[in-house]
Amino acid sequence: MNYKVAVIAGDGIGPEIVREARKVLDKVGGKFGHTFEYKELLMGGCSIDAYGEPLTDETLQAAKESDSVLLGAVGGNVGQSNWYQLPPDKRPEAGLLKIRKGLGLYANVRPAILFDELSGACPLKEDITEGGFDFVVMRELTGGLYFGERKTVEENGVLKATDTLTYDENEIRRIAKWGFEFAMKRNKKVCSVDKANVLDSSRLWRKVVKEVSKDYPEVELTDMLVDNCAMQLVRDPKQFDVILTENMFGDILSDEASMVTGSIGMLSSASLGATKLGLYEPSHGSAPDIAGQDKANPIATILSAAMMLRYSFDLEKEADAVEAAVKKVLKDGYRTVDIMDEGKTQVGTIEMGDLICERI
Amino acid sequence: MNYKVAVIAGDGIGPEIVREARKVLDKVGGKFGHTFEYKELLMGGCSIDAYGEPLTDETLQAAKESDSVLLGAVGGNVGQSNWYQLPPDKRPEAGLLKIRKGLGLYANVRPAILFDELSGACPLKEDITEGGFDFVVMRELTGGLYFGERKTVEENGVLKATDTLTYDENEIRRIAKWGFEFAMKRNKKVCSVDKANVLDSSRLWRKVVKEVSKDYPEVELTDMLVDNCAMQLVRDPKQFDVILTENMFGDILSDEASMVTGSIGMLSSASLGATKLGLYEPSHGSAPDIAGQDKANPIATILSAAMMLRYSFDLEKEADAVEAAVKKVLKDGYRTVDIMDEGKTQVGTIEMGDLICERI
Ligand SMILES: CC(C)[C@H](C(=O)O)[C@@H](O)C(=O)O
Ligand SMILES: CC(C)[C@H](C(=O)O)[C@@H](O)C(=O)O
Repeated sequence: MNYKVAVIAGDGIGPEIVREARKVLDKVGGKFGHTFEYKELLMGGCSIDAYGEPLTDETLQAAKESDSVLLGAVGGNVGQSNWYQLPPDKRPEAGLLKIRKGLGLYANVRPAILFDELSGACPLKEDITEGGFDFVVMRELTGGLYFGERKTVEENGVLKATDTLTYDENEIRRIAKWGFEFAMKRNKKVCSVDKANVLDSSRLWRKVVKEVSKDYPEVELTDMLVDNCAMQLVRDPKQFDVILTENMFGDILSDEASMVTGSIGMLSSASLGATKLGLYEPSHGSAPDIAGQDKANPIATILSAAMMLRYSFDLEKEADAVEAAVKKVLKDGYRTVDIMDEGKTQVGTIEMGDLICERI
Repeated sequence: MNYKVAVIAGDGIGPEIVREARKVLDKVGGKFGHTFEYKELLMGGCSIDAYGEPLTDETLQAAKESDSVLLGAVGGNVGQSNWYQLPPDKRPEAGLLKIRKGLGLYANVRPAILFDELSGACPLKEDITEGGFDFVVMRELTGGLYFGERKTVEENGVLKATDTLTYDENEIRRIAKWGFEFAMKRNKKVCSVDKANVLDSSRLWRKVVKEVSKDYPEVELTDMLVDNCAMQLVRDPKQFDVILTENMFGDILSDEASMVTGSIGMLSSASLGATKLGLYEPSHGSAPDIAGQDKANPIATILSAAMMLRYSFDLEKEADAVEAAVKKVLKDGYRTVDIMDEGKTQVGTIEMGDLICERI
C-alpha cells in the first residue's frame, strides 16, 4: 500500500528528528511492502518566516488531504525570537492549536512509560517505581478553555480578561469512548480526572463518563480530583492505566507524567479524531538551543511514527517492529546525550536513527 | 494582649489536630503573656448535620468578628458519606469556598519545605533534593474559575456546561503584591505561572505582574507556563522561591508541591486578605479513615497556628518559638505514624502536641 504522509518538520530540532523518523518509516515500509509518500509542509516559526502566519489555510488543506501527519516540533526561544513579538494568535504555537481544531483531532494520547533500561533517569526513588510503570494520558484536545470564547475589555478604566470553559455531552462522550477503548486493549482501568467539587463542566464530565462506562463493564472506572491526581502521579504512578481528562488538566498532567518518567526524549504522542487521519509528534518541544547539532534524541519521534503505523494505518506488525527495534537499541547500550549513562555508548541523532533501522 | 480566635474544628481528624494546635497556642501565650479566646464554630459536614448547610451566614458573621480563624479540615468520604448526596453548593467543601470569599481571603500561601529530618520520605531521588528545598506557592484564592459564572443548559437535547475564568487588573495586582512582599522576606525570586500562550486571563496576569515587579527592583521575576511548572516541580524543586499563580493552577501546583516534599502532614497554609484577619489550616485533608484514633499528625495545624501568630498578630518571636519547638521534636526523634522511620520513636497525636509544648 501507498500512504500519504504530511510531514511538518517545524522549528528547532524538528527537521533532524523528523528526518530519522522518515528513515525508520522507509525501512519498515521496505521490509513489509509499503511506500510512504511524503509531503513537506510548513508550520510554526518557519511558516511565520515564509508566509507571515504559523499555519496557512492552504497548508491545513494539504494536511487534510493526507492520510496522516508527522510533526517534529514548533516554536523558538520566547526570550530571543521575533516570533514572540507577534500577537498570540500569530505565534508559532497557534499553528498547533489551529491544526488540532482544523483536523478535528480531539483525542490526544500520551504514553508515560518508565523504560526498564532508563530507570536511572527517573526522578522518583526506586521503591516507588520498582517494576516500572506504563500508563497513558488521554486528553481532550479541541474543547475547554483552549477553544472557548475569550476577551479582554476595559471597564471603568480597569482591564478585565475572560476565558470560557465549555464542554457539551457529545464532546465528553467521544473522548470518553477513546479512553475506554484504550483501556480495553490495556489493563482495563480508567481514571477520570476532573474538578467536580468546583466546576459545572467537571460535573457534566463525570456524569457522561459514567454513562459511557456502562458500555464497558469490564473496565474499572474511578474518578479523581485534578489536585489529587497531580499528587498521585508523584506518589504512586504505578496505580494508573488510562488517565482520562479535559484539555487544560490534560496539558498539565501529561507534562507532569512525562517528567515523572525521567526520559521525555523517549515519549511519543498521537492526536486522533473521528477518522483515521491522525497527527503524531514527540511529547517534547523544539529545543532550539541544541538544534542542528546532531544531539537531539529522535526516539520520541520514531515512536510517534510507530503510533502512526498502528492508529492511522492499522499496521500492527510494523508498529511492533519499530518499537522492538527501539527496545533493542537501548538494550544494546546506545544512548543519545539526554539519556546517557555510565558504561553506555553515546551516539548522535543520525546514528541513533541508523541503529534503529538496522534492527528492523 | 487578648486575641479572639474563631476555631473551626471541622470533620474527620479536624477536632483532634485543632485541639493540639490550641494547646500549643495556649503554651506560647502563657510564656509570652498573651491570651487566646476561642470561639468554636461549625463548618463542613458537621454544619450540614447541625444546620443543613456547610456554612451558615451567622457562622460566617462570627468568623468576621474574630481576629483570625483556625481551621482543622472539612469533608468526608465521598463514596460513603451522605453529605455527597447533596447538590454541590451544599456539600462540606462549599463551606470552605464561602468562607474564603466571605472573609475576602484572596491570598493563599502554602510553604513546601523539605524538612532535613524527613528527607527520607521525599519521593524524589537524593541527587535532586540534596541540601533541601524551601519555597512557597502563593495562590490567588477568590477569583478565576472558582468564582466565575457557571451554568449547565440543555440545547437541542444536548447538555452543555460552562465555567468562566475571569480576572481583572486589581485582583491580579493585589495578589502579585503579596507574592513580591513574600519574596522580599525570602530569597527575592518570584516565578509567575500562567498559560499565556493560550489564555487571555493569563496574558493580563503576566502584564500586571510585570508592572507590579517594577516596585520591587530587588526581586527577580520569571514567567513560567503551567505545564512546564508541573514538570519543574518534579525535576528541580530547588529552583523555586515564590511561585505566584492564579486559583486553579495554584490548586494543582500547590498539591503537587506538597507531595514532592513527601511529608504533607507537616505542611501549613495561610489564607490572607486586605486586613489582618486570616484563615489558617493544614494543607492536608480531613482523613476520615483515621479520625478519632490518635494517629493524625498535628504538626501541619500547629505550624499553621504559628503562621497565625506571625501574619495575623505580628507575634514574630512567638511564631519562631513554635517553629523551633517543631524542629526540636523532630530532631529528638519523635514521629507520628505518617512520617515514621526506622530508629525513631512513634507517638500519637496527643503526645506529639505535648512534646511540642514541652519544647516551647
Ligand atoms: C504549545 C501549547 C499551546 C500546547 C498546549 O498547551 O496544548 C503544548 O503545551 C502541548 O501540550 O502540546
Ligand atoms: C476542597 C476544594 C474546594 C479546595 C480547592 O480546590 O480550593 C481544596 O482542594 C484546597 O486546595 O483547599
